[in-house]
Amino acid sequence: MTKFGRHDDKSLMDLLVEASIKALEDAHAERARIDSVYVATMLAGELTHQTCVANALTDQLGLLPASAQRIENGTASGSSAIINAYQAVASGVCDTVLVTGGEKMRHAPAAEITDWISTMTHPTAEYIHGVTLPSLAAMFTRLYMERYGVTREHLAKVAVKNHENALKNPYAHIHQKITVEGIYKSPESEINNPVISDPIRLYDCCPVTDGAASTVLCSAEMAKKMSAKAIKIGGVGNATDPLAVCERKDPIVLNALKEAAARAFKMADLKPQDIDLAELHDAFEILEFAESEDAGFFEKGTAHEALENGVTSLTGEFPINPSGGLKARGHPVGATGVAQVVELTWQLRGEAGERQVRRARRGFCCNFAGFANNVSAIILEGE
Amino acid sequence: MTKFGRHDDKSLMDLLVEASIKALEDAHAERARIDSVYVATMLAGELTHQTCVANALTDQLGLLPASAQRIENGTASGSSAIINAYQAVASGVCDTVLVTGGEKMRHAPAAEITDWISTMTHPTAEYIHGVTLPSLAAMFTRLYMERYGVTREHLAKVAVKNHENALKNPYAHIHQKITVEGIYKSPESEINNPVISDPIRLYDCCPVTDGAASTVLCSAEMAKKMSAKAIKIGGVGNATDPLAVCERKDPIVLNALKEAAARAFKMADLKPQDIDLAELHDAFEILEFAESEDAGFFEKGTAHEALENGVTSLTGEFPINPSGGLKARGHPVGATGVAQVVELTWQLRGEAGERQVRRARRGFCCNFAGFANNVSAIILEGE
Repeated sequence: MTKFGRHDDKSLMDLLVEASIKALEDAHAERARIDSVYVATMLAGELTHQTCVANALTDQLGLLPASAQRIENGTASGSSAIINAYQAVASGVCDTVLVTGGEKMRHAPAAEITDWISTMTHPTAEYIHGVTLPSLAAMFTRLYMERYGVTREHLAKVAVKNHENALKNPYAHIHQKITVEGIYKSPESEINNPVISDPIRLYDCCPVTDGAASTVLCSAEMAKKMSAKAIKIGGVGNATDPLAVCERKDPIVLNALKEAAARAFKMADLKPQDIDLAELHDAFEILEFAESEDAGFFEKGTAHEALENGVTSLTGEFPINPSGGLKARGHPVGATGVAQVVELTWQLRGEAGERQVRRARRGFCCNFAGFANNVSAIILEGE
Repeated sequence: MTKFGRHDDKSLMDLLVEASIKALEDAHAERARIDSVYVATMLAGELTHQTCVANALTDQLGLLPASAQRIENGTASGSSAIINAYQAVASGVCDTVLVTGGEKMRHAPAAEITDWISTMTHPTAEYIHGVTLPSLAAMFTRLYMERYGVTREHLAKVAVKNHENALKNPYAHIHQKITVEGIYKSPESEINNPVISDPIRLYDCCPVTDGAASTVLCSAEMAKKMSAKAIKIGGVGNATDPLAVCERKDPIVLNALKEAAARAFKMADLKPQDIDLAELHDAFEILEFAESEDAGFFEKGTAHEALENGVTSLTGEFPINPSGGLKARGHPVGATGVAQVVELTWQLRGEAGERQVRRARRGFCCNFAGFANNVSAIILEGE
């Protein structure tokens, strides 16, 4: 992957090319033929005025006449591209596939980004009323606080943990140590950590990020030929929930995630307790709690206690977001699902450096579109 | 599919829903579970300000929690969605998949549409210099005229044939009988058929169209269960060519099409002479000649003679674009690749009414993005 952050000097295509070349080299792809190139990007047309980005990348990389496919599933585009690439290989149509996700966002005004991200919401039940993703997250957070006793300090501690992990990740967008005192209790915190949508404050939200991430998928046979340190895709799942959050039976239950995770676990023939670490979609910190519960790692309403007890820290029993997560690694939307798989791959290979999780044999990640209308779950297994 | 044309009173989602319901009913999908919904649309975000259209459609159709995927490969999005859906089934991840392509374009100013379509071209070698798809087609046509003796009358005759076929297609955008005399030789033709990009005139170009088309893909086993009149996907292929037309060895050879067709024929274990009819991507009339040659149906530079001899007419030996093609059925860009498969399905089932091709057992279609940077070919086989 590229460094995540602000890349004023690079185009979306520059970022996609940089990440792709790294992945191709890492996979020894010169020993194979790339049959297809999958590109995940949410807003290439809207923000960079280019469509058909997948064949443009295929051309730039000298991989012609490979097949080229672009997937847009909003902020879950990255994981959807991986699932479609997985199916391309599993169907026998392709042997080796490059998947690259990327987004170039920082050049656009913040209000424009918030608006485009909001185009994932229900057009008449939500969008036209001014609903944004932070406002949905705020209502979700409020309900979680009321029902399960989650406090603002609990949310802040997720951010503190993920910022701390990101300090050990050279690819992370944000390298800044924060404390609960600093962002909540100091006299300056009202200014430094302003309300975005009450009760959510700035440090409960992920940043807007430029960046790209890339991985190579291939058949088991081809992996041997390429002599790459291959990691197995054990299971994949993608599922949907009503577009309008108000139409869901319980607005703080993530049904699409439950279903996607169940599909991935079934395919992998594994249970949540078989998983050693997870990369979750913490676009808002409350989501790290909700996802870890609805994926089956903790009882509903208890993830904040697990956090308090250090279970989800880098040295805990079940580390979550060792990369820094969306909160601190950053969230270039089309790249995120691919970056999660890249992080798990490094972790399962034992190549994660200072942020290496001990006994990392099986990893889980999930990636959201909208307010969890479209969710993908992927399980990776090491040797 | 919906009627193609101008749909001021319907949203993109309305069109997608209408086509989807028709396809689900036709396939007796109530006897199955739809595992995934693939949506092909090029410009949903740019022109209708909605992203994540696939999960929105899944919700509207009551197909939750099915997986949902949106594919954007420009004007080839439709065929790419079908290929990805094919791979979803062939991989065993899904049994039954809905594929719906659609576009809502007519509400936008023509100059804006031309600009968005041009975002498929090379951003620095073509787009910034004002290159548009019609201007690329004009240069392509000029070279074809010089090298192979194709005349303006030949081009006009493609339009005449496709308009005539469309008169027999109730779903076609344009129901208008035209003649070579009327569009080229009458005193009014300079006004009625103005130059778009010399030598291309209005009647050499497809219209801007609203519409959607839909089909259900499933395993052979599931097809028996659903008792649908299933048509087999014999082969699929997708391939790429340099983004900038000036970088191709011969600018009037469609290499991506050659490669895509070769892949589809190889998978189907068939040859061009085994095919009974074709739906080709005649966004500009010259392309019907070039594609039919590069796919292997005619020797290079001879398709215009085949047209003159009636070979490609509805009652000829090898009918091309019985639906009316992009020229007269219309070109709602994300829908086109799916509409081609829908037309071939009707033809192979013997359900094409007045435009039924005799002895239609095997059909071929191809769908382009950009100026043939990304091309898909699909072969369908009847009983």
